[in-house]
Amino acid sequence: MIKIFNTYSRSLEVFEPHLPGHVTMYVCGPTVYDVAHLGHARTYVAFDAVIRFLEFMGYRVKYARNVTDVGHLRETGEDRMIVGAERLRKHPMEVADKYMMEFFRDMDALGIRRPDIQPRASMHIPEIIEAVEKLVDKGYGYVIDGSVYFDISKFTDYGKLSNIKPEELLMHRIDPDPRKKNPADFALWKESPPSYPFSWKTPWGRGFPGWHIECSIMSMKYLGEQIDIHGGGQELIFPHHENEIAQSEALTGKKPFVKYWMHTGELTVGGRGMHKSYGNFITIQDALKTYPSDVLRLFILSAHYRTPLDYSEKAMEQAAENFEKLINFFENLSLIAEEGRPKPRDPSLDELSNVFKQSFVEAMSEDFNTPNALATVYDFIKKVNTRLDVIGHEQATHLRQLFLETCRALGLLQKIERRSSAAEVMEFVKMLVEVRRELRKRGMYDLADRIRSMLAERGIMLEDTKEGERIRIVR
Amino acid sequence: MIKIFNTYSRSLEVFEPHLPGHVTMYVCGPTVYDVAHLGHARTYVAFDAVIRFLEFMGYRVKYARNVTDVGHLRETGEDRMIVGAERLRKHPMEVADKYMMEFFRDMDALGIRRPDIQPRASMHIPEIIEAVEKLVDKGYGYVIDGSVYFDISKFTDYGKLSNIKPEELLMHRIDPDPRKKNPADFALWKESPPSYPFSWKTPWGRGFPGWHIECSIMSMKYLGEQIDIHGGGQELIFPHHENEIAQSEALTGKKPFVKYWMHTGELTVGGRGMHKSYGNFITIQDALKTYPSDVLRLFILSAHYRTPLDYSEKAMEQAAENFEKLINFFENLSLIAEEGRPKPRDPSLDELSNVFKQSFVEAMSEDFNTPNALATVYDFIKKVNTRLDVIGHEQATHLRQLFLETCRALGLLQKIERRSSAAEVMEFVKMLVEVRRELRKRGMYDLADRIRSMLAERGIMLEDTKEGERIRIVR
Repeated sequence: MIKIFNTYSRSLEVFEPHLPGHVTMYVCGPTVYDVAHLGHARTYVAFDAVIRFLEFMGYRVKYARNVTDVGHLRETGEDRMIVGAERLRKHPMEVADKYMMEFFRDMDALGIRRPDIQPRASMHIPEIIEAVEKLVDKGYGYVIDGSVYFDISKFTDYGKLSNIKPEELLMHRIDPDPRKKNPADFALWKESPPSYPFSWKTPWGRGFPGWHIECSIMSMKYLGEQIDIHGGGQELIFPHHENEIAQSEALTGKKPFVKYWMHTGELTVGGRGMHKSYGNFITIQDALKTYPSDVLRLFILSAHYRTPLDYSEKAMEQAAENFEKLINFFENLSLIAEEGRPKPRDPSLDELSNVFKQSFVEAMSEDFNTPNALATVYDFIKKVNTRLDVIGHEQATHLRQLFLETCRALGLLQKIERRSSAAEVMEFVKMLVEVRRELRKRGMYDLADRIRSMLAERGIMLEDTKEGERIRIVR
Repeated sequence: MIKIFNTYSRSLEVFEPHLPGHVTMYVCGPTVYDVAHLGHARTYVAFDAVIRFLEFMGYRVKYARNVTDVGHLRETGEDRMIVGAERLRKHPMEVADKYMMEFFRDMDALGIRRPDIQPRASMHIPEIIEAVEKLVDKGYGYVIDGSVYFDISKFTDYGKLSNIKPEELLMHRIDPDPRKKNPADFALWKESPPSYPFSWKTPWGRGFPGWHIECSIMSMKYLGEQIDIHGGGQELIFPHHENEIAQSEALTGKKPFVKYWMHTGELTVGGRGMHKSYGNFITIQDALKTYPSDVLRLFILSAHYRTPLDYSEKAMEQAAENFEKLINFFENLSLIAEEGRPKPRDPSLDELSNVFKQSFVEAMSEDFNTPNALATVYDFIKKVNTRLDVIGHEQATHLRQLFLETCRALGLLQKIERRSSAAEVMEFVKMLVEVRRELRKRGMYDLADRIRSMLAERGIMLEDTKEGERIRIVR
């Protein structure tokens, strides 16, 4: 039984998707006018863990994450894509392509499962125009010159997601057109100035779509009128998601648009929100130059997705240390597994494995509590580590398998098989071990010890046992 | 002075782009309804070498390659995307996303420079509809029910690219609608059946765009009405590129659409065209499981882009051998460069470098003759190899730099710095060398020789010189 904290009800609810065993999920994607930063990493890694855990539990997840390449305005009213285009002196769609490709690469580099569909806003202009026409026909939309606004007073539940009160709404209005019926009415469609690079023909003249209607149309086109999970950063609750609900439910005749709303907490750097002017703006690419993606992921999952998360060197060092714990555990189990060391099965380890798996699932089932889930992993490692000497190769293989499957339900250690260097290096390590053995036979202990300490300097420990040398990696 | 074989004139022409120093280039991209195969690899690697060489020569290249996600019909009249959707039981846009992402990954894996812009056909539906309306207004297009056809008899130069004669045209007509004015008239827009997944509203009813008009609109939108280079596989000469010319020039009032048309030759496997039913259909992903991307690239560039190219195990072995030649050369120069071996500069090697660079540029300037260009590389390696013993570390650094730059003008050895395993392995090799030195000092030649032969088995040769051991890699 999985429970999800639903922003809509502000409470934990038992997860029951519309179609048993199947999950439809939409997460608002980036506006591709600049490189993706740690805030994006946090949101998409957090939802990646959600998806992977659902799949681990046997659900089939249909996941859509859009790419916004038009219509997402700044509070000052400029289209972000055009801001990017002016900065790079390129066509806005060239800017979109550049950052979309970099975003895809960043997501791949972070090991994030690819969405089943990644709709681009500009692919849906005709559908959006049709939807705006329909909203006007139904009386929810009204035209002022070439722009179309959504009349929030017509949608009685307006504000039900964010719980924002009418007087607060005034503080949030982006578009100060005094002719609007209600100050907080938002744009479905905007008239464009002449020779504007984004401009499509409509019954109201030439213009471009509003950001909110894009997500309503794209999510419903690919996932249906009623979606199981819709997510994003918490800053999207209002106005973006509030407006999505209003538009979508106005279009479908008040069918509940989304069953579970999920929102990720803020990522801060050095205690404050990331901002270029604060000098604490960190891109995913930069972070990945310093840390392997698993370290970044461990850092992100070390906090529950709804809580704030602060990026600091100290926090990253902690994550790097935890990563070493995982890797060493994996490598040491691999060494035993490959060594061919027959030992009787230790039933207490089977028991330990069962307890581990169960407590991991319990932690994740409680609103995807990744810090608790990771704690069960570390505990498992600690307990198995005390028994590495008594484990035979068969049981080591099983433990490694369980460990990997569990890590991968969090998206960790996906690429470990590709650490081919380790295997290649190990060949040469084994040569050194062989030479050392021969040296010891011949009584040349000084040179044998030198080999041992050269290896130790590189984190490769040799222990002489009755059964021969045991190699253990402590890097 | 670069010469290009222009399909349009069927002759070599001196390359003079519209704007000196700048090149606009459009290559027709894939229809993303299935995985990309070796034919795609051939075309896009060949054009990648063209672009890289132009950039090597100082040109700024603006490169667009589209993604077709709607409207590309089979000869039997079905939309390829819908064929893919039925196969996978998914929404056609989900299919498009899946294969688009795989295509992007394949292109990255092949080390192909990313296009500056990758327009998707579905992003341009409103522009396409406007263009079709304009063609109808100008008398080039006519409507039959909900479809719009291009009247080839109105475009007097029709056939000028492919040199296909009117009587041959009949053999190529895809759409047998008997109401067409000329049998070879092609569709600008097609009416769609009810509940068709691709369907947009137009003045003629609901439908979807023709494949040819998509490329006309996308190329002109991002590169302007007159493009320097337009390329694709030779199978696109007719009807695709012929129709693009007719549409584009009809729209712009007969401004010459493209200055240089370039077409790649066929890729065959085992002597015949790839086809799933022949069992010789090889995807890029499969090929990359067997061969590193540099090997695949060397194979592709071993033939001139216009000639047919046959994929066979023997040809790939030859390419793999050549790749080893490049890698060993690079690694041996690196060993000398890092060794700190001071030697007087050998002026004959400077001379050799100059001759190499010049002959490489000459080969590539003659219609991008990659086999000749590669021959100059192999020749350079051969000549430098005979002098490895006399090269000091400074000259080795220079030679390595020149070698890398040249290889990279062909897109080769892009990722060589990432062969971190080599560096890591080398640490342990050096430990073994150190132990061996000590063993020789102590007169234990048998064990010293064993180390030497263990290393030799792995392609690492030790040579004892007055200046110490010299390591050479012959893998």
